[in-house]
Amino acid sequence: MKNTNESCIPTPPALTKLGDNWFFEKKIPNCDKQFKIGVKIKEKLFETQSPIFHFEIFETVSFGKMLVIDGIIQTTEADNFVYHEMLTHLPMLSHPNPKNVLIIGGGDGGMLHEVLKYPVESVIMNEIDEQIVLACKTYMPNLSQGAFDDPRAMLHFEDGKEYIKKHTDAFDVIILDLSDPIGPAADLIALDFYRDVKKALRKDGVISIQSGSLTWQPKEVATINQRIKKVFSHAVVHKGVVSTYQGGEFSFTIASDLALENISLEELNKRYRTINGSTYYYTPKLHHASAVLPKHLQDLLNKTC
Amino acid sequence: MKNTNESCIPTPPALTKLGDNWFFEKKIPNCDKQFKIGVKIKEKLFETQSPIFHFEIFETVSFGKMLVIDGIIQTTEADNFVYHEMLTHLPMLSHPNPKNVLIIGGGDGGMLHEVLKYPVESVIMNEIDEQIVLACKTYMPNLSQGAFDDPRAMLHFEDGKEYIKKHTDAFDVIILDLSDPIGPAADLIALDFYRDVKKALRKDGVISIQSGSLTWQPKEVATINQRIKKVFSHAVVHKGVVSTYQGGEFSFTIASDLALENISLEELNKRYRTINGSTYYYTPKLHHASAVLPKHLQDLLNKTC
Repeated sequence: MKNTNESCIPTPPALTKLGDNWFFEKKIPNCDKQFKIGVKIKEKLFETQSPIFHFEIFETVSFGKMLVIDGIIQTTEADNFVYHEMLTHLPMLSHPNPKNVLIIGGGDGGMLHEVLKYPVESVIMNEIDEQIVLACKTYMPNLSQGAFDDPRAMLHFEDGKEYIKKHTDAFDVIILDLSDPIGPAADLIALDFYRDVKKALRKDGVISIQSGSLTWQPKEVATINQRIKKVFSHAVVHKGVVSTYQGGEFSFTIASDLALENISLEELNKRYRTINGSTYYYTPKLHHASAVLPKHLQDLLNKTC
Repeated sequence: MKNTNESCIPTPPALTKLGDNWFFEKKIPNCDKQFKIGVKIKEKLFETQSPIFHFEIFETVSFGKMLVIDGIIQTTEADNFVYHEMLTHLPMLSHPNPKNVLIIGGGDGGMLHEVLKYPVESVIMNEIDEQIVLACKTYMPNLSQGAFDDPRAMLHFEDGKEYIKKHTDAFDVIILDLSDPIGPAADLIALDFYRDVKKALRKDGVISIQSGSLTWQPKEVATINQRIKKVFSHAVVHKGVVSTYQGGEFSFTIASDLALENISLEELNKRYRTINGSTYYYTPKLHHASAVLPKHLQDLLNKTC
């Protein structure tokens, strides 16, 4: 791992014993539903306010360690596999032979771990906030499972929208593992950003985007889909359920100039066998099935896209 | 509607103004996850303890009216369509020509409303607790949408496991819309009950069962599947997401001696066009796609069934 911006993890506060306490999530952005979820926690392992985000890591009773950024649950040890597998394997297996991969975001290292299951030459992970990486390496090492030490992995710490402009025709797959599009991530669903992403991609490259909750942020999913379709010939919205995300059906959008819809199950199975390791959520059969949306959500996408 | 056991709805208590209050759900049965969901409520419209269940109806801020039985959210006006459509249309469209239908449970009338979209001759709804029907007709009429007044609908109020024994070769489709299999519903996942259901069904009849949360009650889903397969040649577990159910992926199991897996999309589309009215969640394309489960859940079913 080449770490371009070495620094030390901030000294954590003393561990906070929380006894019988529950952590209740804030309202998720761009959602007007008065609904909240609570997770019973044993203790707060870490908390800091970086220049960019406020983040916390908890030891929970039922979900292992849990990362919370700006009051919103980002991932837990128990169910991160859903998110990380869908956002990785959908684009990686849609590409015939991905060799060079860029992850924007992905501070906890879970995505890096999934991508490194492939025989890739290099994976660059560009995260805006180095402190997230340092905290997750220290307190949630089960997410990255040593991925940061893989010689094929390179880390950069820079604003993703600036970093992407420096590249042309450089990547086979780009994964946008971003927090909700407010604050620092707001510019990362802009049309100009998607154009820069396309420029950084090789011909027939594939991208994936965490595009929000289909159930509770449907306009956000539709907006992303609409913009992506102005830049790529093909865009497909897939769904999956992360149990500690309050928004029901979560969406993962993939896009390319390749006809993503037409990849056969036989071809997906062939590519799937090149993975070194297993998956726990993704299967080639689920690849296309997860793109069949409930009627009201498909209608919404058709209407707005 | 023939109501076999006329009685009056109990006088409700004075409406309780709850201001900024939140309703927090109890832990769901057969689940060890320390997780809860909260729904912001405006007021409690109704509460009673019948001889069988404790039930409450709330006016919520974001989900319309909400029915809670024994502390567990059963349905809301905003998202009941997912549950009612999946549990109805999966079996109804798997049968070539359903004429006589039995619903066991279904007190809120939402299932009855869905079934009556078909050109059926009769639908019997057998609910153990008459008070649920009376309360839902009064406080949540948007769920049944007048279905109780349809001349094809008949109501009985009796324990489902006794009622089913009285029938042989009588129904094309039987829908088991039951609460979680504890308390009064515990016997309704027993092998003997499924044998009685099979006897009440005509040759090539189809049943559907709410079989719990795939995400958080996977052993329950597997147990039901295991027993059902002892009685029927074909059983398929489908998934769907009800946003106010805390358990992530919810399961709907259908079973028959017909080869449910082999019904073509073309045939489903043809049958779907006989529905009088529309669907909001179900589509023929989603029919088979919803049966493609994530790997870890399919592995669990394969291992135990």
